[in-house]
Amino acid sequence: MPTPCEKAAILVEALPYIKEFWGKTIVVKYGGSAMSDENLRRAVMQDLVLMRYVGMRPIVVHGGGPDINRMIDRLGMDTRFVKGLRVTDASTMEVVEMVLVGKVNKAIVAGINEIGGMAVGLSGKDGQLLRAEPIPGKEELGLVGRVREVNVELVASLAEHGYIPVIAPIGIGDDQQSYNINADHVAGAVAAAMQADKMVLLTDVPGILADPQDPTSRISRLRVSEVDDYIECGIISGGMIPKVECCVEAVQGGVRRTHIIDGRVPHSILLEVFTDEGIGSMVVRG
Amino acid sequence: MPTPCEKAAILVEALPYIKEFWGKTIVVKYGGSAMSDENLRRAVMQDLVLMRYVGMRPIVVHGGGPDINRMIDRLGMDTRFVKGLRVTDASTMEVVEMVLVGKVNKAIVAGINEIGGMAVGLSGKDGQLLRAEPIPGKEELGLVGRVREVNVELVASLAEHGYIPVIAPIGIGDDQQSYNINADHVAGAVAAAMQADKMVLLTDVPGILADPQDPTSRISRLRVSEVDDYIECGIISGGMIPKVECCVEAVQGGVRRTHIIDGRVPHSILLEVFTDEGIGSMVVRG
Amino acid sequence: MPTPCEKAAILVEALPYIKEFWGKTIVVKYGGSAMSDENLRRAVMQDLVLMRYVGMRPIVVHGGGPDINRMIDRLGMDTRFVKGLRVTDASTMEVVEMVLVGKVNKAIVAGINEIGGMAVGLSGKDGQLLRAEPIPGKEELGLVGRVREVNVELVASLAEHGYIPVIAPIGIGDDQQSYNINADHVAGAVAAAMQADKMVLLTDVPGILADPQDPTSRISRLRVSEVDDYIECGIISGGMIPKVECCVEAVQGGVRRTHIIDGRVPHSILLEVFTDEGIGSMVVRG
Amino acid sequence: MPTPCEKAAILVEALPYIKEFWGKTIVVKYGGSAMSDENLRRAVMQDLVLMRYVGMRPIVVHGGGPDINRMIDRLGMDTRFVKGLRVTDASTMEVVEMVLVGKVNKAIVAGINEIGGMAVGLSGKDGQLLRAEPIPGKEELGLVGRVREVNVELVASLAEHGYIPVIAPIGIGDDQQSYNINADHVAGAVAAAMQADKMVLLTDVPGILADPQDPTSRISRLRVSEVDDYIECGIISGGMIPKVECCVEAVQGGVRRTHIIDGRVPHSILLEVFTDEGIGSMVVRG
Amino acid sequence: MPTPCEKAAILVEALPYIKEFWGKTIVVKYGGSAMSDENLRRAVMQDLVLMRYVGMRPIVVHGGGPDINRMIDRLGMDTRFVKGLRVTDASTMEVVEMVLVGKVNKAIVAGINEIGGMAVGLSGKDGQLLRAEPIPGKEELGLVGRVREVNVELVASLAEHGYIPVIAPIGIGDDQQSYNINADHVAGAVAAAMQADKMVLLTDVPGILADPQDPTSRISRLRVSEVDDYIECGIISGGMIPKVECCVEAVQGGVRRTHIIDGRVPHSILLEVFTDEGIGSMVVRG
Amino acid sequence: MPTPCEKAAILVEALPYIKEFWGKTIVVKYGGSAMSDENLRRAVMQDLVLMRYVGMRPIVVHGGGPDINRMIDRLGMDTRFVKGLRVTDASTMEVVEMVLVGKVNKAIVAGINEIGGMAVGLSGKDGQLLRAEPIPGKEELGLVGRVREVNVELVASLAEHGYIPVIAPIGIGDDQQSYNINADHVAGAVAAAMQADKMVLLTDVPGILADPQDPTSRISRLRVSEVDDYIECGIISGGMIPKVECCVEAVQGGVRRTHIIDGRVPHSILLEVFTDEGIGSMVVRG
Repeated sequence: MPTPCEKAAILVEALPYIKEFWGKTIVVKYGGSAMSDENLRRAVMQDLVLMRYVGMRPIVVHGGGPDINRMIDRLGMDTRFVKGLRVTDASTMEVVEMVLVGKVNKAIVAGINEIGGMAVGLSGKDGQLLRAEPIPGKEELGLVGRVREVNVELVASLAEHGYIPVIAPIGIGDDQQSYNINADHVAGAVAAAMQADKMVLLTDVPGILADPQDPTSRISRLRVSEVDDYIECGIISGGMIPKVECCVEAVQGGVRRTHIIDGRVPHSILLEVFTDEGIGSMVVRG
Repeated sequence: MPTPCEKAAILVEALPYIKEFWGKTIVVKYGGSAMSDENLRRAVMQDLVLMRYVGMRPIVVHGGGPDINRMIDRLGMDTRFVKGLRVTDASTMEVVEMVLVGKVNKAIVAGINEIGGMAVGLSGKDGQLLRAEPIPGKEELGLVGRVREVNVELVASLAEHGYIPVIAPIGIGDDQQSYNINADHVAGAVAAAMQADKMVLLTDVPGILADPQDPTSRISRLRVSEVDDYIECGIISGGMIPKVECCVEAVQGGVRRTHIIDGRVPHSILLEVFTDEGIGSMVVRG
Repeated sequence: MPTPCEKAAILVEALPYIKEFWGKTIVVKYGGSAMSDENLRRAVMQDLVLMRYVGMRPIVVHGGGPDINRMIDRLGMDTRFVKGLRVTDASTMEVVEMVLVGKVNKAIVAGINEIGGMAVGLSGKDGQLLRAEPIPGKEELGLVGRVREVNVELVASLAEHGYIPVIAPIGIGDDQQSYNINADHVAGAVAAAMQADKMVLLTDVPGILADPQDPTSRISRLRVSEVDDYIECGIISGGMIPKVECCVEAVQGGVRRTHIIDGRVPHSILLEVFTDEGIGSMVVRG
Repeated sequence: MPTPCEKAAILVEALPYIKEFWGKTIVVKYGGSAMSDENLRRAVMQDLVLMRYVGMRPIVVHGGGPDINRMIDRLGMDTRFVKGLRVTDASTMEVVEMVLVGKVNKAIVAGINEIGGMAVGLSGKDGQLLRAEPIPGKEELGLVGRVREVNVELVASLAEHGYIPVIAPIGIGDDQQSYNINADHVAGAVAAAMQADKMVLLTDVPGILADPQDPTSRISRLRVSEVDDYIECGIISGGMIPKVECCVEAVQGGVRRTHIIDGRVPHSILLEVFTDEGIGSMVVRG
Repeated sequence: MPTPCEKAAILVEALPYIKEFWGKTIVVKYGGSAMSDENLRRAVMQDLVLMRYVGMRPIVVHGGGPDINRMIDRLGMDTRFVKGLRVTDASTMEVVEMVLVGKVNKAIVAGINEIGGMAVGLSGKDGQLLRAEPIPGKEELGLVGRVREVNVELVASLAEHGYIPVIAPIGIGDDQQSYNINADHVAGAVAAAMQADKMVLLTDVPGILADPQDPTSRISRLRVSEVDDYIECGIISGGMIPKVECCVEAVQGGVRRTHIIDGRVPHSILLEVFTDEGIGSMVVRG
Repeated sequence: MPTPCEKAAILVEALPYIKEFWGKTIVVKYGGSAMSDENLRRAVMQDLVLMRYVGMRPIVVHGGGPDINRMIDRLGMDTRFVKGLRVTDASTMEVVEMVLVGKVNKAIVAGINEIGGMAVGLSGKDGQLLRAEPIPGKEELGLVGRVREVNVELVASLAEHGYIPVIAPIGIGDDQQSYNINADHVAGAVAAAMQADKMVLLTDVPGILADPQDPTSRISRLRVSEVDDYIECGIISGGMIPKVECCVEAVQGGVRRTHIIDGRVPHSILLEVFTDEGIGSMVVRG
């Protein structure tokens, strides 16, 4: 166990990072093991509150697939699949919204409050935060949508007043219809609209691996212009493709740095922000 | 149909009421038929948005019993009753919160947005809005609570910036435990904390009736000091008692006027605020 | 007589117009029958106060010819005419200013206050609001001037704080000399300087008529580019020409919509702003 | 003629007075010779503008008897007198208001603007500045009133933004009726409502004289408690009595210092404020 | 060396302290070994900048005896002593001020800037920060003074805007004479005037020791009411007496907690503020 | 001695200048006889305070060569010269900073406070006001530097809040090293960074003389484009060259007018600003 003096030294060591990120906006996509594992969950809450108290403006966007699946099962609902993707019909959408907004979102809000931050949960309907539309060419998936416009005024005002906004990825169409939107995509859209300094996607992998079998082969830094090549040669594949695409969109929208990090490491957000070592893979301009 | 000139005359006739209520805060408890009937629902949304645009600051607190019951049924959950009151155990509480926050609240937000207002949905967890505690002597009801403290800062700031806050009656305990709170009670507590000028409870009765069989026997104005007598002699009885008690608490907490009105009448809120006739029963100081 | 519910319905019907004009600036040139007829006068005051309370920023510019003529007669003053236009010499100017500023302006201020608005009367001298100069080529008319510069700071600040500015069309020259300015022209100049959303000229005609004998032949919408043709073919003629020119100048100065409406219709301003039917003739960009 | 260096020395000599009065509010009752004599008039305008530029907040209240009399004569109006005081009936009131607001007030505004200040003329109707009522026991004088309430918000806001408010002593009754009010009395009421630091009444006498025949017998300082004695023994008599009473009321209303000074001395306001010598008679607390 | 994860854990461990002191004002008396030893000096600068970046408002008051002595020696100046205390005559005062303000103060400012904070150095003359007077009964010491009044406006405004004020203990008399003031006393006076939450005196001892020979006998907490007894029985003695008296004065002036800590321990300020262990002796109300 | 009325007339005569310079920023380089002669010194302090009270924002930059030389002599320090210029090694720099910041600067601050202004002394280290670097090609002079960047935020904020900033010409390098900078150059750099309306260099000559032997041959106005010719023909020579170059740099940096005036004339700053005569030589754009 470190001595008090070693502890003080470590705080001082963090000072350059605190200065660097003071007043900066950071959007965190929260999901995966970091949400399901209790210890990891608590570490994320601590990281968010710490960031707010050292002068940063964290904004959380969360997913919640497992909870949705569980509720759909409990309700014994039929589910239709198209090419392996679940179709979101009106009754499914109702469950998705209810679980994400009424359960997952509020659990995160309570978790942050417990550590001492002041969180405010929002869905894309509040203040018309996330104007949505169907994804062109994927209409058969039903009420799965994408972000058409982000009304950042409400989020910006909350963040400026010291609240931590927690956003459920539910969009609202012109007809006030709810849309189910991918949380990574929402994080990217919100980060771009806020002109955030950093976007962090918490995942269950160590980052982008040159050799998927070798966790030490992590690529720590990619330029946007290199992404296509990596996809073509198969290094970026499967579920990683949409994540990297979110990063690319965010960077092209004005976000300075985007990160795909390993949410299974406790305090991974803090490690990303406040230490030199860094973790995961960073996608940047260029 | 009135001519354009008659329409203009009616707008002008509303002017004294608009002046009187300009800048005033009004808390509306929304529930009952006004929530379940589509036409009434839409009329309430219009009333709220109109109030906001003529300079008032409406705040909505809503219930949602029927939706909760439906979901509990769909989930085939067991329910235990104590003296006729449903016990809210942890798994019931989860459903209550999910339905109120994730479904009912968001439907109201979307409804207001549809008319053109900017609504923001909140539960008592957001910004620690509603600090709650168990109701003394009713511990056997489980997670049914009452309001211990209202953190109005967030609601006041949203209302001041032109948003319409929509509050789900979920409280948060010191242990971050969720509590199910009676929506009338939340409306009264929020109205007192905001030092609101008016609180309106939308019900499914015409008001307090001297003769319950005679809808024309409505008592249009009660002083707080008269309430006990009315209860004793049975004129205020049954489900009306807690409603009147909410009014009394709100008045004693500093709210100028409290109203129990008939939500089955279209635009009943508007009729209460903007016309001389008034409707329902008003409970005032004295 | 409409029932309370019909009244509520009419208020709700006005909501889209209220939303549309919320926070917008509207300059009203007030004169003619709407000023001399007591019922019409009171209806105008009501319209102005209502607009302010539903979030608009009305600004009034007024004329006052009849009152001036009456006072000149009472004083038995000589009047010289040039091509039918009265010459404004120094002693006439003194009477013009005294009547417009000391009588007509204050009667309007008192009228607005009576309805419950807070009006502040201004002449072009106050805060150097209307810097004026002689009209080139019309020097023989004496102290008849035109607006050279509008110092909107004072008017804008008053309107922003909820006051209704009421402006007498007296200008001030570099030598502090008073100038008599056409009120329509002042309305246009103030509307342009304020970048108003709407300018309304109250007249004693139904608008621009395709056939002057036929009140139903009203042209409800003209583009600026069509005006010359209309003048050439005689449809716009006589006293209507300068009114339309004021509209054209205002539109070219940045005002979105300008209207020539019939002040003899009670609540004509309200009808123009808050109902679909509209009245009079609108001159717009294009 | 003083050399440049002597001039600089005199500016520096004024510094202690400038510091003392920086940010202070001063109400000046303007009338008498200082208004009718062109040189004196211009000196007053310069004094007012200078005060504003060295950080003070001057507020002007003016009379205008001679101009009113002249206009009443020109109009050949009948006048009735009661105990030597002119009765102000409705038609007289119209002339009084027209001349004070439309002529005298605007001439002062133009005069201040000419020197480079930004003046805004107000009557008691603007922003309901001067709420008035009949003087009890003097109802036979007609529309002669006294101040019942001063709405200082408008005046305070204008003064704070660097404008010089110029107030015509016209009051407004509950029925929107105009009232003719004594300008000294208005100055005192405005000074008290503004909690002014100083009120100055410009008169045509050197101050209060112990021996009316001897201009050198001026009493330079009176305490409020001494005033009754001075009236009893006849030293304060005639037209000086109401002036001293205005000072007493202002002092009792919270004004620190009130002065009756000789407006026939050029720059008398400046001499009062910016030099040690002082002029006239000062009425203070005690 | 701790792993990145241990480092993150230590940051998180600091969170409760960061929350507790967020927005709080802390006055640090800086002197002794912490000023003369380069490593300790740098650690103090880091502590100050870290505190500012985690939301605190640190204010520094410094001494500088050794530098003054060195300069007096270099200048070969005569020094007179009264009862062992150096007499501060005019020429000594000149050197004291020159060294404290022109050398010591600026070195601290530069040191803070080097770490990345924004410091502003002030003497008691700037903005008349420290109004001083001779110490009654110690006139024979010459220009040694005590604080009569603190003008906190300048310091409060700088701290609020994120600057770190660094104050040299030079006071200014009514005659603009400079006074040499004890830095501990200045720290106490500034802390009281700022209603600081904490005052920390950096010394070269471990705190107040029950047995001066035994460093482990430190008294970690004293109530103000216990101080006299401790002095009487000799536990507080010698140079510790004035230090404790400064703490007592500060506490009586409204400072919540005052601390006498060991400046020879690196990062002692940080250890005091951010860890449970605490160090030194705390003097509190009671 | 002028009479009170003549004094008032002189104040009024200053009004046009006060209006012209109201709210304007003026940077004064203070040095030479105006600093060493007690009467001149006091006159400068009065001029500065007067300017602040009539609405200007004066900023002082001072030199202090004689005091530095005296202290170097007292300390018996060795001095090395290169081409007649003293080399500023580390130990000399220490004395320069100590004397300028700790003695000269504070004497000016106290002098301004004595007259009633609120001065705040700053060195280039405070708030990193003056970022400095060595002068290219003059490295052999040691720590003599030039301004690389001015952080005006602190100075601008102080001036806006009514303080008079007094700046010692000490710069700070990237390595936190102190640099000795020419005060005229600092005045020019600060004036440009503040976009000042005027810069005044107080010197011991009457301005630029066409014939150095003839004080009446003063050139009262030069355009920047004429400076090279004047230098070539020898009219601007010796110590006047760097002064004129400072003016040129300031003008090119955006300062409207720059003046080289005779500080030996009492109240010369006031004479420059507040009278028509003007004094010294003005360098302007063109």
